[in-house]
Amino acid sequence: MISGILSYAASAHGSREIVSRLIEEPLWRYDYDSCAARVAKTANMLLHLGVAPGDRVTSLAWNTHRHFELFYAVPGIQAVLHTANPRLHDDQIAYTINHAGSVVLFFERSFLDVVQRLAERLPNIRHYIMLVDAARLDPGNIAAQSYEDLIETFPIEHCWRAFDENSAAILCYTSGTTGDPKGVLYSHRSVTLHAMAGGLSGALALSAFDCVMPCSSMYHGTAWGLPYMAPINGCKLVLPCDRMDGTSLDELITQEGVTFSGGVPTIWTMYLAHLEQTGKSTGSLERLVIGGSAVPRAMAETFQQRYGVKVRQLWGMTETSPLGVVATPTPQLTELGEEQRDEILLTRQGRLQFGIELKIVDDAGAEVARDGQSAGRLLVRGPWVMERYFKSDAPGADADGWLDTGDIATLDCFGFLRITDRAKDVIKSGGEWISSIDIENAATACPGVRFAGVIGIFHPKWEERPLLVIEPHAGAAVTPDEIRAFLSERIIRWWMPDNILLGDMPLTATGKVDKKRLREIYATSLAANQGAIHAG
Amino acid sequence: MISGILSYAASAHGSREIVSRLIEEPLWRYDYDSCAARVAKTANMLLHLGVAPGDRVTSLAWNTHRHFELFYAVPGIQAVLHTANPRLHDDQIAYTINHAGSVVLFFERSFLDVVQRLAERLPNIRHYIMLVDAARLDPGNIAAQSYEDLIETFPIEHCWRAFDENSAAILCYTSGTTGDPKGVLYSHRSVTLHAMAGGLSGALALSAFDCVMPCSSMYHGTAWGLPYMAPINGCKLVLPCDRMDGTSLDELITQEGVTFSGGVPTIWTMYLAHLEQTGKSTGSLERLVIGGSAVPRAMAETFQQRYGVKVRQLWGMTETSPLGVVATPTPQLTELGEEQRDEILLTRQGRLQFGIELKIVDDAGAEVARDGQSAGRLLVRGPWVMERYFKSDAPGADADGWLDTGDIATLDCFGFLRITDRAKDVIKSGGEWISSIDIENAATACPGVRFAGVIGIFHPKWEERPLLVIEPHAGAAVTPDEIRAFLSERIIRWWMPDNILLGDMPLTATGKVDKKRLREIYATSLAANQGAIHAG
Repeated sequence: MISGILSYAASAHGSREIVSRLIEEPLWRYDYDSCAARVAKTANMLLHLGVAPGDRVTSLAWNTHRHFELFYAVPGIQAVLHTANPRLHDDQIAYTINHAGSVVLFFERSFLDVVQRLAERLPNIRHYIMLVDAARLDPGNIAAQSYEDLIETFPIEHCWRAFDENSAAILCYTSGTTGDPKGVLYSHRSVTLHAMAGGLSGALALSAFDCVMPCSSMYHGTAWGLPYMAPINGCKLVLPCDRMDGTSLDELITQEGVTFSGGVPTIWTMYLAHLEQTGKSTGSLERLVIGGSAVPRAMAETFQQRYGVKVRQLWGMTETSPLGVVATPTPQLTELGEEQRDEILLTRQGRLQFGIELKIVDDAGAEVARDGQSAGRLLVRGPWVMERYFKSDAPGADADGWLDTGDIATLDCFGFLRITDRAKDVIKSGGEWISSIDIENAATACPGVRFAGVIGIFHPKWEERPLLVIEPHAGAAVTPDEIRAFLSERIIRWWMPDNILLGDMPLTATGKVDKKRLREIYATSLAANQGAIHAG
Repeated sequence: MISGILSYAASAHGSREIVSRLIEEPLWRYDYDSCAARVAKTANMLLHLGVAPGDRVTSLAWNTHRHFELFYAVPGIQAVLHTANPRLHDDQIAYTINHAGSVVLFFERSFLDVVQRLAERLPNIRHYIMLVDAARLDPGNIAAQSYEDLIETFPIEHCWRAFDENSAAILCYTSGTTGDPKGVLYSHRSVTLHAMAGGLSGALALSAFDCVMPCSSMYHGTAWGLPYMAPINGCKLVLPCDRMDGTSLDELITQEGVTFSGGVPTIWTMYLAHLEQTGKSTGSLERLVIGGSAVPRAMAETFQQRYGVKVRQLWGMTETSPLGVVATPTPQLTELGEEQRDEILLTRQGRLQFGIELKIVDDAGAEVARDGQSAGRLLVRGPWVMERYFKSDAPGADADGWLDTGDIATLDCFGFLRITDRAKDVIKSGGEWISSIDIENAATACPGVRFAGVIGIFHPKWEERPLLVIEPHAGAAVTPDEIRAFLSERIIRWWMPDNILLGDMPLTATGKVDKKRLREIYATSLAANQGAIHAG
């Protein structure tokens, strides 16, 4: 039961702090004990509003303590929290809320405009609740109520019921690049097992002495489960709201004594730039776990060598709750010496974790060699791997429980996984595979390059050949020839893109290169003009 | 599934070593990968012998790699491993094997005599298998077969089936001080959850860099679950067989690089004495977890101050799988300063762990204050707390899942538990409770005292008064008056035993003071002679 996680923290680590930034409100500071009392109030309020077991409730919220409270109050009464992604387009947000069938919508004050725009398309929503105190409430044209006002009068005790551990608790939608977003349900059982495993030393290695700041979004795969792992391990929790700029992160890290944080590479690049501009230190920061896309090598080395902060990669997906693998050292790696150890830690997504089984198979379904070279489709299985999408009849996993991740990967003799491509992005050239990710990573390291995207273009002889699109940094003057020269020392000869173009990069809602859009823009026109490309 | 634990270790930490001492055989050395292959052989052999799902199989074995193999092979085929306690009397061993209904008996060569004595009383045993290679087999008069010989021809692969996670896996009997031993069943689910939780930093804090040597017996509550925790965390595993003397422990710790060990205080006292005699160091040893009885303060301080080895207490019981609480530091404790922190860590059994709920209640069932003073009956609940004894109709736990531990304890504001007495040993004097354990601990610290046992003696006015029995160290001359003077500075005045006697101490099969026997020897005669005692 998820309620047991917070009850444990309140009982065993009651005075451990939770600190939260908020939109237009001062820093919020309380502890697990007081938090548990407020979560009880919220649960009581939800029951009073008529939210019943199995009902869905949507949050459109940042990483704040109120969102954290919903992570416990909603599942605690056996309802399901749908953590909507505010970075999606209006249509997609409306689609997910309606597909979820939510009856209550909690939202930040900064989303009032969005919610007002969407309201008439959300027929099931019975209550709009703004995550603010009464003084800052702006009810808009949707008669929104204040969260603080609503919970105020309810008792600070709630008798958490025990029910089937397989009951749904959290609903996340994946922003797939094709079709409508798909819903993934996490159960009380899967959330709890995932949170226990994630704290182990081979994964995030959390302890009661850690101060954890999740900079991955709580609406995106529950911020790696950190809102559940921190209380289990008695960690202090710092919630940065939506303020991921260098100055804001530095402030919280220094003032609150953050030891552990994690998020996508972009924000850590901004944080490093801030440190370099100001000459500040990383304070008590010990470990940074980076996921979402490949870790730029230079950034990792700066953190480790200049600041003594350990950088670890992580791979997972919404369908895996999301922890799949984490790149943590082993004695076997240590024996290789520091340089080789770091080479592996920084170029692999992570190593096998207890609770997640991985299998890499060829097209015939046979396991490929664990040699770090043989690539194949990555399948995963385990107690926190999704079995089917929400409201979908088709099973997501096969009869033995294996889920096809849609990734192409290798596994090496040290048990480390490397994602080489998305199955749909891999380029098939002359019967062999070219990893679009490897070329993009190599190109991103080239001075002046901001974004790099590689897609396959139809080729009459080779089937497909790579096209590289580059968006340079503002003001940077970089030419295709310079990039080609840079790449020639870093990738296999026959992987060299036939054409390198400069232009604006289309990005997805989660800030990744939008390959689908890239194909729409380039593939058709280029395929029709194949001769010209080869000359390019 | 327990099979998943070893499969994980073989896959992710395949080359990590397992080293095992054996009876009359050289040190055995292999890794998780080879171990998994042998476990498959053993499982195939068991199926060949006709062992079916649900069948029970008994081991009468020390901490060795072959016993470790049985920990996986037997539950892996959905049979149940009954880990018999060789320290029990013949009658009790036979009772537990028959009560379990075991069909196969695995035993060490050193138990051949016992097994031969018992054989005619074990009608269900179809196969006697000695845990030795063919060359060292002594079939005795029971036609014992050699384990190595039996498994040799079987394939090194086994397709581990998935089945209900609530299936029984391990059966342990508690050597209760009254009545027949009672069986406690661990399921695949409870073993796995217990092993995941036990590795967390707030519990045993295991990592892939640890080399773990379990010195608590594998037949006694699965050696705290270490045979399951070590593979999950990728630890090297060192198994000391039955050799717990100082020289043998020192050898393994130094040669194998042991970082983590645990067991009852007695063996660590012997180990310390060995170090002092030889001037040797503790090598790479970092942490010692001590359970089973209270940690002598002087021993803990010597380990910490002279050798830099951290000493942690642990409390649990067979009925709790066995982990209940572990005394690990928290930031709150650290703020108190080193001295107060250690005072708490060394005088409490441990702090609240995720997964185990504790409740201390008074006679009316109401929770007592968490002030470190108010004592009451300790109730526990959780996914690895037993619900009922094997083959017993009476539930062990109440309707809400709370199990009465039979212990009297306090809980303090830091979440630390202190066991003050067994409920049946607590002395009720003038309406107040006197902790027999506190008096015993105080007396044991007195120079010259080897064992101290306190029981309550009927008293016409106060209901009960404490009697202290002392067994001095061989050759030590210690008098009741000296002990009384020593105690007077360490315990509350009205707790002072009315009488202090010198004599041999009766011990239980697990090496604890046998209070039942102590009462038989002293209580009746003394109660009949009350006047004389008060003069004593």
